[in-house]
Amino acid sequence: MSTTQTSKIEIIKAATTKINEVDFENLSFGSVFTDHLFECDFKNGEWQKPVIKPYAPFLLDPSTRVFHYGQAIFEGMKAYKDEDDAIWLFRPDENYKRFNKSAVRMAMQEVPEDIFMSGLKELLQLDEAWIKRGKGNSMYIRPFMIATGTGVIANPSDDYKFMIILSPVSAYYAGEVKVLIAEHYSRAANGGIGAAKAAGNYAAQFYPTSLANKQGFQQVIWTDDATHTKLEEAGTMNVFFRINDTLFTAPVSERILDGVTRKTLLELAKSEGINVDVRPVLVSELVEASKNGSLKEIFGAGTAAVVSPISGFSYQDVYYELPKNENSMALQLKDKLTNIQNKLAEDTFGWTVKV
Amino acid sequence: MSTTQTSKIEIIKAATTKINEVDFENLSFGSVFTDHLFECDFKNGEWQKPVIKPYAPFLLDPSTRVFHYGQAIFEGMKAYKDEDDAIWLFRPDENYKRFNKSAVRMAMQEVPEDIFMSGLKELLQLDEAWIKRGKGNSMYIRPFMIATGTGVIANPSDDYKFMIILSPVSAYYAGEVKVLIAEHYSRAANGGIGAAKAAGNYAAQFYPTSLANKQGFQQVIWTDDATHTKLEEAGTMNVFFRINDTLFTAPVSERILDGVTRKTLLELAKSEGINVDVRPVLVSELVEASKNGSLKEIFGAGTAAVVSPISGFSYQDVYYELPKNENSMALQLKDKLTNIQNKLAEDTFGWTVKV
Repeated sequence: MSTTQTSKIEIIKAATTKINEVDFENLSFGSVFTDHLFECDFKNGEWQKPVIKPYAPFLLDPSTRVFHYGQAIFEGMKAYKDEDDAIWLFRPDENYKRFNKSAVRMAMQEVPEDIFMSGLKELLQLDEAWIKRGKGNSMYIRPFMIATGTGVIANPSDDYKFMIILSPVSAYYAGEVKVLIAEHYSRAANGGIGAAKAAGNYAAQFYPTSLANKQGFQQVIWTDDATHTKLEEAGTMNVFFRINDTLFTAPVSERILDGVTRKTLLELAKSEGINVDVRPVLVSELVEASKNGSLKEIFGAGTAAVVSPISGFSYQDVYYELPKNENSMALQLKDKLTNIQNKLAEDTFGWTVKV
Repeated sequence: MSTTQTSKIEIIKAATTKINEVDFENLSFGSVFTDHLFECDFKNGEWQKPVIKPYAPFLLDPSTRVFHYGQAIFEGMKAYKDEDDAIWLFRPDENYKRFNKSAVRMAMQEVPEDIFMSGLKELLQLDEAWIKRGKGNSMYIRPFMIATGTGVIANPSDDYKFMIILSPVSAYYAGEVKVLIAEHYSRAANGGIGAAKAAGNYAAQFYPTSLANKQGFQQVIWTDDATHTKLEEAGTMNVFFRINDTLFTAPVSERILDGVTRKTLLELAKSEGINVDVRPVLVSELVEASKNGSLKEIFGAGTAAVVSPISGFSYQDVYYELPKNENSMALQLKDKLTNIQNKLAEDTFGWTVKV
């Protein structure tokens, strides 16, 4: 290991690289990490010196707050390499802002923009060999923060650890996605933490999702917990419904994550002249539209899969198959978006940021 | 360190004890831990050999699932030492059953009873010098489990770590407790994880609680998230309301933790001839009872504080002070319960279990 100083970040380089052990043709999403990570601790009331160092396990006391009271948030982002080997981020300001919104809701420390952004960029530059060119290829970026204070008393932690880890990914193919519409279980409460990218929101979905899996459905579309009549989101994706030629999606709320892909698709759709309607969509409307043939598509939108077409949904034990479309809006929008992300089409929106 | 084998648990003893560094007269709740901990890992589809070893930090990969997707549950229990230095647990079967209920809801591995109970007992015996006699003194026991699988993909972990740590505590005095009744924020959703002792349920409450703290209230009494009209629980305590001479508390539900102290107080109250009514209590009833003088007491019930009298509540910006009672049911029940727990009164209920 050699220690050098770049701007304010201490950089401790790994003695060797693991890159030759990686089969980039067969990457399993989120399971391979690059040689380095970025770390910055908040303690004694202030952010400590940020460091980039070899990716490695770290020590935590058994009474560390994140284990007991769940203060943990994250973001999901991607970086892309263009044909000239330049590295690009996609709307990183959106992820940064949302990260700190999550921090506030979980009573955690907000991360200064300079630490977040310069950490991200330095780390990507150091591990740039891990970012592969080509459509579908990208570097999945996982900024996260955990409570590192100790003691089993249910109060916010004084100390936090902010980290960024990188995982190279190739095109995400989810297979056929059939969804179950939630009739009993829920993801989020009114006045709860559904809009935060909090670790606990994910664990809460695993059990009901496993029940859906056993019935042959890959995902659950969550509904409002009070009445189970309004369609909300799919937990790791926001959800869009195409009825005739209008694209519907639920408005963001305290219960629904303000997805960057969701927001981007709405803007892209408008620029394509697609009619967009952001309003609560009722389960009954969806069933009715499926019955009368006006329901053309359902798709999920999120950083990992970008756009994920859904082949059918189940509600009250009835399965509604979606039609096969020659003119899929999902695929049209996905193509537009991934071309911008991969710098294969002009970015007239100013979404892509060079590292 | 010396390694010995007791039943099936491997025991690695600490070379020295930290007990002489501890001021048992001035214990801060949950901040001091004993010399050893109990640990059992679930991996490769099975529970590994359990071990008792010196309390120490342990290594985790940055992509460990608990950091990213929040699978983490715990229990809170206490052990007591009687005048003959025998160690007693209080209704440990209730905590064990609830722990595994939480595990199921969070899609985690259930812990076998033998691992949970023998780990608990062996650990208490090894660190028995840390358990002090006398009313108010006890050993706070924290069994917990975290997801230890790696990889940033939102699925249940394959691997888990179950641990028990011990923290000596003295009588818990919360100071004056004024509460704020939740009008916007919520703790739990219908069909959510409110009944599980999941780490994420606690982090979700910190921010709204900090807002209440700034207004001069120590705790929040949560209401149902859909209408905010029904009184539920206080997040770390269940809540009882005494109107005239009847004790009311909300029924347990998907949104409300099935508290062991709550359940115990209900049984104790009945045996004392106190009229008990378990039903949803409306905020409007509480306000009305306060106005007409029939509201006599509000108190919280939980393992840490046992019984915590509340001096007043605020709702819609009006503060309702509670009367000072000479015949407090809270204190009467607390006295009965702590006498049984400390083996100062006969346990006719069969709640206490000798270690």
